[in-house]
Amino acid sequence: MSMALSEENSLALQDYLATRREWVERALAELPVWQQGASDRLVEAMRYSLLDGGKRLRPILLLASAEALGANAQPFLPFACALECIHTYSLIHDDLPAMDDDALRRGRATCHKQFDEATAILAGDALLTLAFELVAQPVAEVDPAVSLQLIALLARAAGMAGMVGGQMLDMVSEKQEISLSQLRKLHACKTGALIQASCITGAWLAGGAMVFRDRFAEYGSAIGLAFQITDDILDETGDSRLLGKATGQDQQSSKATYPRLMGLPQARREAEIQIERAEESLSGLGTAADPLRWLARYILTRNQ
Amino acid sequence: MSMALSEENSLALQDYLATRREWVERALAELPVWQQGASDRLVEAMRYSLLDGGKRLRPILLLASAEALGANAQPFLPFACALECIHTYSLIHDDLPAMDDDALRRGRATCHKQFDEATAILAGDALLTLAFELVAQPVAEVDPAVSLQLIALLARAAGMAGMVGGQMLDMVSEKQEISLSQLRKLHACKTGALIQASCITGAWLAGGAMVFRDRFAEYGSAIGLAFQITDDILDETGDSRLLGKATGQDQQSSKATYPRLMGLPQARREAEIQIERAEESLSGLGTAADPLRWLARYILTRNQ
Repeated sequence: MSMALSEENSLALQDYLATRREWVERALAELPVWQQGASDRLVEAMRYSLLDGGKRLRPILLLASAEALGANAQPFLPFACALECIHTYSLIHDDLPAMDDDALRRGRATCHKQFDEATAILAGDALLTLAFELVAQPVAEVDPAVSLQLIALLARAAGMAGMVGGQMLDMVSEKQEISLSQLRKLHACKTGALIQASCITGAWLAGGAMVFRDRFAEYGSAIGLAFQITDDILDETGDSRLLGKATGQDQQSSKATYPRLMGLPQARREAEIQIERAEESLSGLGTAADPLRWLARYILTRNQ
Repeated sequence: MSMALSEENSLALQDYLATRREWVERALAELPVWQQGASDRLVEAMRYSLLDGGKRLRPILLLASAEALGANAQPFLPFACALECIHTYSLIHDDLPAMDDDALRRGRATCHKQFDEATAILAGDALLTLAFELVAQPVAEVDPAVSLQLIALLARAAGMAGMVGGQMLDMVSEKQEISLSQLRKLHACKTGALIQASCITGAWLAGGAMVFRDRFAEYGSAIGLAFQITDDILDETGDSRLLGKATGQDQQSSKATYPRLMGLPQARREAEIQIERAEESLSGLGTAADPLRWLARYILTRNQ
């Protein structure tokens, strides 16, 4: 059975992604903090990396998860922006010479190449801090006690036992062979935790009960893993012009990847299994959850 | 008139600082997050820098500000720990080769010297994130809506228009001459904002009304500036064995300092003026505010 999206659903997804992306782009570009009178150079570096035309996957997952439960997601845009700030800071720091030492990101010079290392470190720090300033803004639709729980969830997903911890495992694993289960743990932390938090947060903001939050956690975990596997596959087989970054990087650095540890066909199959798992977690939800369903399929078949 | 502390008050202050420092040390050492199962290396680096016997000025200012308004400050220890996490992360990142390139901190190897640059960057990132996890924990004594406001305050003080912005100004100003007013702005952001936030947070947690929060903001701003001026003076005149770091660093790097821009006697006088301002901001408060009064005097006359 083909897991590709029908042309109709593919167009509907593109339309959905385009409108939600526009919400996010506008909200990011117009954050009141840009007027706070901070150092011009710092603001320039933050905006250079934040407003660079990324996919906005995490903010859109938050919005789509809230909408899947019938909510109007627009009031939750500050939370969506916070996720993108955290994602962007992590890319800036990961690209640093002491980390992955990347010169190119989304088709442009990385932050430390465009500015300098000190500025890139500080721009990352400032974006991480900004994320928490954003989620601490009161939102009329959200009980402050829920906001507090979401801040704790976000901090855990982004922190030592989540994204930062995953990056640490990644650095350590470059110097040694790791097993498939270690690779899974690494990715569950490094990319999975924040993607999962995006989905849970959307469901929670929409007033979803614990049982729903658990199902969105499952969805997020499945597509997070699928996203990482397809990322590895694209690095091996993809087109660097479409991706906007050099391919074959993992190969050169003898880094552990799913295709390398399982073989390419098995890695593809594993990604499909995760997408099936994602779809199952949404079973029983109505058409409002369709964008999440389409998105899962899209992750599987994307070429950039 | 001498602004030195009497021997009696000096002993009372030492006693106060020792007990509050012990509260903070224990709370930091026993944070539940150390058991979260993160990468051993990351946890080790975080604890290496966090549990290194610092002065704990910011946490103690929070506790003392709450106590000055008659509160029991122990329930607020998670907030106090968060301040120290943010302070420590800023030191780790400031010490990096791309920033101040320091090998020694508080008498020990800096984090990137003890571990490596990637680990130091990530340990800093994780400590900053941890701070927000800590302040998002519900505290029975604190209304969640107040907690949210305190998180926003903390993020602003630590972020692009506060501490990170100040460090950016500091990096930029190394390459050009700056004026005294620019130096004040730099320090108001780089060190003043977080010190001020510590005092405001303590007063706010204690239930202090806006008028009190404004007075603690004034106190924090004054001692923050005094602290920075005495830091510059100590760098010029201090004993590197007592300070646990190399002195004369600023001189070597031709960095702008108060002694350099105003002359040493005028810098000393300026620090005294700030301490008088700090004392005035506490006028009318009873003996519960004495530790804050003593602390102000102590900052002026410290030799480490």
